[in-house]
Amino acid sequence: MPAPARFNFSAACPSPVPILPIDSGRYGSKEMRAIFSDEQRLQYQLDFEAAVAKVQARIKMVPEDAAKEIGRAAKSGKITLERVAELEAKSEHDTAAMVEAISEQVPSGAKPWVHYGLTSNDVVDTSTCMQMRDAFSIIEGKVAKLAQSLADRAVEFRDLPAVGRTHGQHASIISFGLKFAVWASEMARHVERIEEGKKRFLLCKTRGVVGTGSLMGERALEVEKLVAGDLGLWPVDAATQVIPRERYSEMQFLMALIGSTLDKIAIEIRNLQRTEIAEVAEPFKKGQMGSSAVPVKRNPIKSERVSSLARMLKSLVSVSMDNIPLWHERDLSNSANERFTLPMAAVLLDEMLNAMTKVVAELKVNKERVTANLDMTKGQIYAEFVLEALVKKGVARFDAYRDIQRVAFAAIESGEQFLDAVSRDESIGRHLSRKEIAAIFQAENHLAASGKIVDNVAKLVKDVTKKKM
Amino acid sequence: MPAPARFNFSAACPSPVPILPIDSGRYGSKEMRAIFSDEQRLQYQLDFEAAVAKVQARIKMVPEDAAKEIGRAAKSGKITLERVAELEAKSEHDTAAMVEAISEQVPSGAKPWVHYGLTSNDVVDTSTCMQMRDAFSIIEGKVAKLAQSLADRAVEFRDLPAVGRTHGQHASIISFGLKFAVWASEMARHVERIEEGKKRFLLCKTRGVVGTGSLMGERALEVEKLVAGDLGLWPVDAATQVIPRERYSEMQFLMALIGSTLDKIAIEIRNLQRTEIAEVAEPFKKGQMGSSAVPVKRNPIKSERVSSLARMLKSLVSVSMDNIPLWHERDLSNSANERFTLPMAAVLLDEMLNAMTKVVAELKVNKERVTANLDMTKGQIYAEFVLEALVKKGVARFDAYRDIQRVAFAAIESGEQFLDAVSRDESIGRHLSRKEIAAIFQAENHLAASGKIVDNVAKLVKDVTKKKM
Amino acid sequence: MPAPARFNFSAACPSPVPILPIDSGRYGSKEMRAIFSDEQRLQYQLDFEAAVAKVQARIKMVPEDAAKEIGRAAKSGKITLERVAELEAKSEHDTAAMVEAISEQVPSGAKPWVHYGLTSNDVVDTSTCMQMRDAFSIIEGKVAKLAQSLADRAVEFRDLPAVGRTHGQHASIISFGLKFAVWASEMARHVERIEEGKKRFLLCKTRGVVGTGSLMGERALEVEKLVAGDLGLWPVDAATQVIPRERYSEMQFLMALIGSTLDKIAIEIRNLQRTEIAEVAEPFKKGQMGSSAVPVKRNPIKSERVSSLARMLKSLVSVSMDNIPLWHERDLSNSANERFTLPMAAVLLDEMLNAMTKVVAELKVNKERVTANLDMTKGQIYAEFVLEALVKKGVARFDAYRDIQRVAFAAIESGEQFLDAVSRDESIGRHLSRKEIAAIFQAENHLAASGKIVDNVAKLVKDVTKKKM
Amino acid sequence: MPAPARFNFSAACPSPVPILPIDSGRYGSKEMRAIFSDEQRLQYQLDFEAAVAKVQARIKMVPEDAAKEIGRAAKSGKITLERVAELEAKSEHDTAAMVEAISEQVPSGAKPWVHYGLTSNDVVDTSTCMQMRDAFSIIEGKVAKLAQSLADRAVEFRDLPAVGRTHGQHASIISFGLKFAVWASEMARHVERIEEGKKRFLLCKTRGVVGTGSLMGERALEVEKLVAGDLGLWPVDAATQVIPRERYSEMQFLMALIGSTLDKIAIEIRNLQRTEIAEVAEPFKKGQMGSSAVPVKRNPIKSERVSSLARMLKSLVSVSMDNIPLWHERDLSNSANERFTLPMAAVLLDEMLNAMTKVVAELKVNKERVTANLDMTKGQIYAEFVLEALVKKGVARFDAYRDIQRVAFAAIESGEQFLDAVSRDESIGRHLSRKEIAAIFQAENHLAASGKIVDNVAKLVKDVTKKKM
Repeated sequence: MPAPARFNFSAACPSPVPILPIDSGRYGSKEMRAIFSDEQRLQYQLDFEAAVAKVQARIKMVPEDAAKEIGRAAKSGKITLERVAELEAKSEHDTAAMVEAISEQVPSGAKPWVHYGLTSNDVVDTSTCMQMRDAFSIIEGKVAKLAQSLADRAVEFRDLPAVGRTHGQHASIISFGLKFAVWASEMARHVERIEEGKKRFLLCKTRGVVGTGSLMGERALEVEKLVAGDLGLWPVDAATQVIPRERYSEMQFLMALIGSTLDKIAIEIRNLQRTEIAEVAEPFKKGQMGSSAVPVKRNPIKSERVSSLARMLKSLVSVSMDNIPLWHERDLSNSANERFTLPMAAVLLDEMLNAMTKVVAELKVNKERVTANLDMTKGQIYAEFVLEALVKKGVARFDAYRDIQRVAFAAIESGEQFLDAVSRDESIGRHLSRKEIAAIFQAENHLAASGKIVDNVAKLVKDVTKKKM
Repeated sequence: MPAPARFNFSAACPSPVPILPIDSGRYGSKEMRAIFSDEQRLQYQLDFEAAVAKVQARIKMVPEDAAKEIGRAAKSGKITLERVAELEAKSEHDTAAMVEAISEQVPSGAKPWVHYGLTSNDVVDTSTCMQMRDAFSIIEGKVAKLAQSLADRAVEFRDLPAVGRTHGQHASIISFGLKFAVWASEMARHVERIEEGKKRFLLCKTRGVVGTGSLMGERALEVEKLVAGDLGLWPVDAATQVIPRERYSEMQFLMALIGSTLDKIAIEIRNLQRTEIAEVAEPFKKGQMGSSAVPVKRNPIKSERVSSLARMLKSLVSVSMDNIPLWHERDLSNSANERFTLPMAAVLLDEMLNAMTKVVAELKVNKERVTANLDMTKGQIYAEFVLEALVKKGVARFDAYRDIQRVAFAAIESGEQFLDAVSRDESIGRHLSRKEIAAIFQAENHLAASGKIVDNVAKLVKDVTKKKM
Repeated sequence: MPAPARFNFSAACPSPVPILPIDSGRYGSKEMRAIFSDEQRLQYQLDFEAAVAKVQARIKMVPEDAAKEIGRAAKSGKITLERVAELEAKSEHDTAAMVEAISEQVPSGAKPWVHYGLTSNDVVDTSTCMQMRDAFSIIEGKVAKLAQSLADRAVEFRDLPAVGRTHGQHASIISFGLKFAVWASEMARHVERIEEGKKRFLLCKTRGVVGTGSLMGERALEVEKLVAGDLGLWPVDAATQVIPRERYSEMQFLMALIGSTLDKIAIEIRNLQRTEIAEVAEPFKKGQMGSSAVPVKRNPIKSERVSSLARMLKSLVSVSMDNIPLWHERDLSNSANERFTLPMAAVLLDEMLNAMTKVVAELKVNKERVTANLDMTKGQIYAEFVLEALVKKGVARFDAYRDIQRVAFAAIESGEQFLDAVSRDESIGRHLSRKEIAAIFQAENHLAASGKIVDNVAKLVKDVTKKKM
Repeated sequence: MPAPARFNFSAACPSPVPILPIDSGRYGSKEMRAIFSDEQRLQYQLDFEAAVAKVQARIKMVPEDAAKEIGRAAKSGKITLERVAELEAKSEHDTAAMVEAISEQVPSGAKPWVHYGLTSNDVVDTSTCMQMRDAFSIIEGKVAKLAQSLADRAVEFRDLPAVGRTHGQHASIISFGLKFAVWASEMARHVERIEEGKKRFLLCKTRGVVGTGSLMGERALEVEKLVAGDLGLWPVDAATQVIPRERYSEMQFLMALIGSTLDKIAIEIRNLQRTEIAEVAEPFKKGQMGSSAVPVKRNPIKSERVSSLARMLKSLVSVSMDNIPLWHERDLSNSANERFTLPMAAVLLDEMLNAMTKVVAELKVNKERVTANLDMTKGQIYAEFVLEALVKKGVARFDAYRDIQRVAFAAIESGEQFLDAVSRDESIGRHLSRKEIAAIFQAENHLAASGKIVDNVAKLVKDVTKKKM
């Protein structure tokens, strides 16, 4: 085999180049991506330094003026990524460079009070939690909105009988709205999980190098509590140099779990949009191409994207768990991968929520097809109800089962409607009248508790999400 | 290479043979393993059938007598694994076989009411939740007990100064008790997580084939609520044929998360027990061998086992997430792997909790060594405090930092005590007196908030775990 | 909520009880499970001790008689699990107990030569590789057999036109046999991977405590090479106390990868067996029940089981990777989880291969339905070929594309056959004659290279698997 | 709790902003990142279109002139990301936009031959393989170079006795060089894996929409083979619309496996650099800061970064496995996540290789400390050798073991040197002379096969890597 023609690296490669589809802007809303930009990360860190100084001044730990100067510098816009990068090039320590950059911007009397009593990782961990506070604020709102949208569509299709499928086979009858109700309920639970979890993972830490509050003494705990309050975070109960990573892992898992529900919805839509089923269709923009070779296809590409990104999101959980057992008062092995995991999770989940919210709200439901599919098996879908009717008449379940199986298989072979086959069968006829049999073969008679379930879920969603949207 | 001598399979292999170390009895307490034995699983299913019949009789859905007969059969001990296996061999359907086995044990008048209104998976899912209810009862008790034990040891070593290490390097001074306090706080949070999560994952479902309550109608919801109440479970809000698997995944993750905290403790013990550090030692039974070649070693094998099993436990989370997006009203792709995942998670976590509880309670702490290790760097560990003292005197942080770095590196080169080097340095001497410097080099002056943190955690643990032990 | 009725643990729990479905005999062939039974594992260890002694005698390192006595004891059947368990209860060290059990069975002159020059882990790791050697022998045979079966079915359906689907949508035309050819080629590659990988993961180690051959000196390498040759294994290039775990991980991944191909086949079958598609059906035993409520369903439960177990198998890869970076010359953190991972992987893969081999060989293909499905879109599936015909006539691709899209969408709206719509369209008619259009709408004209691909794969499979079955 | 001060999103967020540390330039060499930039990805796609046209002209399938025009356009630099993005905005299909952008740049006579006989995914998959071909070329060279560097250091420390540790405990004596030899051998195997794997995962596909070569007919296979040859790739045996994803998964796993070996090295260095062990130190740049609070620390941050990124790399394997079972002739669920996984894996592995190559080459080994650590246990490390000496004198292993254990434990209690304790013991003295005992307590007498192993590995590395650097 000849040597491959290899890419010529001599051409200068501009830096930074967009490589991953978060940075190129392909995925995620502008507001979510903004939270995790290098620029905004720096601003969160500056805001944290200012918030700590402000609290320290409040309790007379540092001079009022110094705190003001630090606050002014933090908001000045003069502390730039470029300047911090220059300082980092010398020290090879990014947080130290940020602190030095603040120092440059305050009068000498304030310099000793910059970053007072803190260690680098107080800044890194707390500012990350500030990012995640804002990210979860976006996520929770979108989860709640999607829950509401799903509940609306559940109510819309509350009384539409549809095929219920198990093992990919027609199995029974459901309300088409029940599908949406199951998802709505799941999204409502995610809101509940976020609400309950926040206190465990949106945290503030000002305890210094090894978690003892070494430089502020016992007052470190007081500072932490007050700063947490100001920033909408919770103080950590106990920590080493870092916030315990089991807390971050809960947060990663929760985002992945929401992603898995979105994947579940996406897979259902992809399945129901199959050419052979065709009960739903994703919204499709005029002019959008389905394929470079086949013009007429309408592919559920938004749902497919959600499925794809759900895998990525799910994989991040294991990284977060690997970070839990850091050595002693911390090692650095969580650091590099967390530069990826939390931003990726938040941005991808945001993308997935946006996609799925649009798909659910605008999903085209082909009611004729939903109804037509009920008849695809020539009435065999009613077998369960014939069985139950026989049992109610006192026939032993297993006798009834064997009878129905016999009649059903024969009807399949002959191509007969199951209704006709059942009506003709003597064994069944002994227990059920023609009229009773006819009533069994009406789909709308078998929605059972579907309507009530839909109503209950709609109410639950309303209660849970009311304050989140 | 010659053909390998291959194992002779002609010798009949007895079935079942112990293969995996849960079944051979190597891992897990007797009581935990009992919950998941094939025998006991069958009993949980029978108990569920009895509980449903009892509630159905209560609301006049089935005859009182039938419910009594079903209850009697369920408790009779006459429905055996062997009989169910025989019936399954015919139908290739395990739940149907169980139902048929009950049917055989009740009078014909009760037969129609066996499994009334249920589908197989109502039994499978709810009985699994009954197993997990009992498993979590054991786990929660052990987590609470371990939290308490950790808190006790935190208090015991509340005032013992020790090396705090970051990046594997001596970094600062902590209270030795703080290590235990961090873990105790983490275990207390796990109790909180279990308490908050239960309502979401210990569930009862009686909604039939596709989640509509097809056979009991709207009353399916009433039955479900009452059965849930009787069994110490919660009714599912909305479901397909199965309980939504995002709920099981939360449960799997929670167990894995507890396991990761145990791994974190285990790794710390393994590190502190290193020959070169030797601050702790696992309890060691007289006569126990460390190695088949090296008699004198005392290996932290219990902690190593915990680390090993934590990896197994963690890996199960991804399986549980893969099970979330089942197709339509369910497919069977969750079924076979759940025969492994939940029992494995519960039994392995039980094993790990037992091991770690023993290790923590009996851990030998070598206080002399803890203290001696503080001096290993010839005082360099006090550098942080010299820095802070200079800053408090008004020296700019970066000037102070550079001065201390200079002195510290020189002392390392010359082998001098850092106290002496600092005392001799003019630049530092301008700001700090001999007496001030001497006070800095006292370990007990640097515990800062450690004691208060330990006390706070001890109180927290007491509050959280009080009712769980 | 009332307290749950809790399981009564007072009843003695027999030990061992079957808990996991490998030990209960539910999954895996008898011959595969036998390899991993506790009993057989002990025998592999004894065989290894005998093989080492035999080689050591051959090169005059130990007395000929001693080696013979050790060999005799190893084969005697007198060294039982029970005896080893008794000895382990004292020493808490399982390999030491096994060695002591051999010692008990040989004359005192042979005792010093039992386990001569070895460390425990030489036994553990090499005997594990002996198990995996036999496991892979079974697996490779079954993979090859399945590859052949898939190739046979590819040839069987070589000329049957079928719908090709992308995004769940009808997209184009394939030979139905091509599906099988893709899978057959994938299985052939797995045989290749096993053949190439064996030398890296079926290993022999006799290098003692820390991998230096401390007790046999340089001759340790000679012993290792000869024992490896006798046992059908390869000597390890370099090792610590243990065989490097990156080698085990390759083995775990390979098994999981084979499992993923089986899952891919399973998912295709589950999709093609959907009620709405119905092109294939899994073999179904007479009397087998589809559901406890719906008698007539024929569920693809074997394929669903394969999908389920594939998730379990896949999850084990991460455990094996976590075991790679053991500390220093080894820590024990690989040990407990490897008691699960390798046996589980081998037994589950065996189960999956058995299931899928049966499904593939006996899969019912409904040719009428395959053909009928081609017409489901009223000819729209031929759009790609109309496009290409236009391009060949010199129409710019994008003009052709827009034309076809227009005609296709209109035909969908009106319910017209695409053939008729295309025939009537003036814009298209300018480039294609009626006769040309008619030829385009013949499915058998569009199999393209399918037949040749099937033939090539059949030949490849034959070549690759010839010697493996 | 007061409402958090939330980030003001109204400020316009520039797009693209660097978010992830690959795009910001933090990780990965310039040449590796260049391969995966959006710009270069487009160029690979253009080069593929040109290569196909060229081959098609060679076999008279398309006009020679058309192929030349397409080739010219592909190299012209006029087909820009901006133009493709504009066209994609209309069609929402990125490959179609790229094809249209070529079309715009060629004369009308060549337009029909642009992308002739191809489907979008032929371009996507093959151009990805071209990227990976170049990425693996870089990786393989760096793996080989690191293997060589490790072998060099193994030879350098071939004869330096050092502590061998198991379970974190001093266990026996090794050659310090053996550590490097184990790693060198592992890296050599990775070269072997890459060489064997390439043919399975660097692939070319030109088979159209559903893998039948629908538009070129049987000649699609000929085109594919010739294009593969020109591009240094291999033709795929059988495919659907996409290259089977089990092939990509092998590639992902291989990169993760190499990463795990790097993590293993990193963890060893982090452990050996601990303050208490101090046998090695990472290179440390003058002026580099260890911590913002503790100036004198020298943290193994490069190794910690490698450990951190290894977790990320490892997690990508599961994503690649999830992509294997696509539905039917493909669904899109692999697409979005592959925009992350392959670039991330290649760039992160590149970063890790660069870091570890530097660390290994410049690692400071403190020989005095290596030697001093041997004496840390007061001679207990020689216990194994005393044991073996007794066994060689005919003492039963278990008697010898118990004797040594007794003496060793007594010596630990009394603080006596083990040499003295052994020398005084009557039971041992009956079998070993003073002189014999003295010889046992010489470290250099226990390197056993270490030197030979080092030499063998050095030779192996030389052979394997010769042609790769």
